[in-house]
Amino acid sequence: MTKPGAFNILATDGQARAATLTTAHGTIRTPVFMPVGTVGCVRALSPDDLMNLHAQIILGNTYHLYLLPGDELIARRGRLHAFSGWDGPILTDSGGFQVFSLQALRKISEDGVEFRSHRDGSKHFFSPEKVVSIQHNLGSDIMMVLDECVPFGADKAYTAKSLELTTRWAERCRQAYPQGAGNQLLFGIVQGGFFPDLRTQSAAQISALPLDGFAIGGLSVGESKPLMLKIMRHTTPLLPPDKPRYLMGVGTPMDILDGIEAGIDMFDCVLPSRNARNGTLYTSLGKVNIKRAEYKEDDGPLDPACGCYTCSRFSRAYLRHLSTARELLAYRLNTIHNLHYFLELTRTAAHAIAKGTFQTFKAAVKKVHAHEHT
Amino acid sequence: MTKPGAFNILATDGQARAATLTTAHGTIRTPVFMPVGTVGCVRALSPDDLMNLHAQIILGNTYHLYLLPGDELIARRGRLHAFSGWDGPILTDSGGFQVFSLQALRKISEDGVEFRSHRDGSKHFFSPEKVVSIQHNLGSDIMMVLDECVPFGADKAYTAKSLELTTRWAERCRQAYPQGAGNQLLFGIVQGGFFPDLRTQSAAQISALPLDGFAIGGLSVGESKPLMLKIMRHTTPLLPPDKPRYLMGVGTPMDILDGIEAGIDMFDCVLPSRNARNGTLYTSLGKVNIKRAEYKEDDGPLDPACGCYTCSRFSRAYLRHLSTARELLAYRLNTIHNLHYFLELTRTAAHAIAKGTFQTFKAAVKKVHAHEHT
Repeated sequence: MTKPGAFNILATDGQARAATLTTAHGTIRTPVFMPVGTVGCVRALSPDDLMNLHAQIILGNTYHLYLLPGDELIARRGRLHAFSGWDGPILTDSGGFQVFSLQALRKISEDGVEFRSHRDGSKHFFSPEKVVSIQHNLGSDIMMVLDECVPFGADKAYTAKSLELTTRWAERCRQAYPQGAGNQLLFGIVQGGFFPDLRTQSAAQISALPLDGFAIGGLSVGESKPLMLKIMRHTTPLLPPDKPRYLMGVGTPMDILDGIEAGIDMFDCVLPSRNARNGTLYTSLGKVNIKRAEYKEDDGPLDPACGCYTCSRFSRAYLRHLSTARELLAYRLNTIHNLHYFLELTRTAAHAIAKGTFQTFKAAVKKVHAHEHT
Repeated sequence: MTKPGAFNILATDGQARAATLTTAHGTIRTPVFMPVGTVGCVRALSPDDLMNLHAQIILGNTYHLYLLPGDELIARRGRLHAFSGWDGPILTDSGGFQVFSLQALRKISEDGVEFRSHRDGSKHFFSPEKVVSIQHNLGSDIMMVLDECVPFGADKAYTAKSLELTTRWAERCRQAYPQGAGNQLLFGIVQGGFFPDLRTQSAAQISALPLDGFAIGGLSVGESKPLMLKIMRHTTPLLPPDKPRYLMGVGTPMDILDGIEAGIDMFDCVLPSRNARNGTLYTSLGKVNIKRAEYKEDDGPLDPACGCYTCSRFSRAYLRHLSTARELLAYRLNTIHNLHYFLELTRTAAHAIAKGTFQTFKAAVKKVHAHEHT
């Protein structure tokens, strides 16, 4: 059996790569999109829905699961896989992003970050060791190091100081769970804000650590799309080529193809699931707001080129009716479709890379989705 | 092929009967519980969920579908079966119950009832002919006549006058859709409030009409359980024995068994689905509030005797977590379980009747559910 952490590049096309990454719960093919399962389920979907979608790996949020129902309770249930009924690979974030984005009252020190629960205001403390311990309790296949996600607009002096802290925290995470300590992988996170030289510095420091994969953090935090792409394109080639690369929290279909083109392997984003719940649906013909009156009497499928459950079973008229009536079924059907779109996008990208036709594929998607910012 | 409307009693056990009723979309076995699909879907469930539950027939609400998305729009989509993707039998109510229970501003006349939409306050008028026309547009397998559902506490004089109106409206419904006019069945509704002699009078009038089945309306409107049972037990034997009998909007598991015992064949109630969304779940061990702290660390299935998807796949601890976190998945999983419970209850009752063991079965369920009022 292949060992967790094994990363095999099967094909390249320019900087884009098609690869496999082995985890304790199975081998995933990259490029891959990871649906976000905030509190132990992907909102509105069952684990069987995800299997039917051929989702390969899902993301769990350490911050949310730590607060509710608690990582120790989940550990006693046999960890997150047994608790949630999802038996495939799981990646957990470190909770850092939520602490830094949801919390105004956080206090950062060398040791870690103190914050208040968004639920009940109670005080909590995340150190590098603590978030590794939580993720160990959750039993995720891929753990993320604790990092400081600097806000958009932070100055260079602060960002430079912060990235050094992120590096020291990454070292402490690795020490808290040394390589080979178990079958959970640990990924590092490159920070450095919107300063290319600081990104270079952070990438050099983080890449030097014995980690199983490398992520780009701190993007999609309010900056313009060109700036996001500039930093992503600057940073990606600085990451070790023989390890998986993960662009955190990004993005639209075009962002994902831009990332793949630059050499990114893994993506997660709430966009498809959150938009689904608003009735905004991604299709081969462009984005559709299914609540619009023009779909009232439209008996065709949402996307004629889509093979998902929703498109093979229901009409635009019915989806429009359920979505405007805010029926619970709408959330599930729309989420199934949007996740199918994102999953199929990365699957098709992998095939295109293997065939050496990635640019043709990207150009075709761009024709439809070029002007979308969400 | 058996003709829609054919009703064959296969077995009796006391007054209880096991039978089959043929509709244009298939033959159903009775006693049967009909899940309520208010606006063209059973809340939180897909048609495939209902098929997996072996639901035989579902109910659609004429009032809600008329207002949203509109019966004419549904007719243009190929009627309710094509629109919603549910290909099994559908019964639609007449809208009368909603008009009389949701609307303070209704105005009743010989011709029909004027009311305002609960959505936008717009004025509408339901006549017997209009509700038949709406149900024809919806294409339901079983249509219900328009009736006046008198409020609990109405005096005898009013109730007596009202039941005569209900009879005249039933006649007009039948004239608007004569027997054999198409393959939709039409059921009558007995009213008469809480006055046994008025129930006798209404049953005699309605039973005399050439209708395909007979319902008891006007119960579960605020009266005590003994009074509901008294009127139900008084009225049921007055309905034609060779036609299906339907107890509208009732009730708890024990109410259903009491109804079956008296000779009722069909039931509908929002109780299992509405309670599911609140986390109140029916099990072989009694009613469970899954949000209670005692289930936090309970790794067992919700109901060890249940074979539903939810019970075979998830733990009480996980259901408690999803339900307290108000995750959308909780609504679906809990609804699946509760509907399975009600469907299995009527299926098992049918088997017990065939074996002549209905009283034993009822006594066993009573041990668990005797003291439940919701």
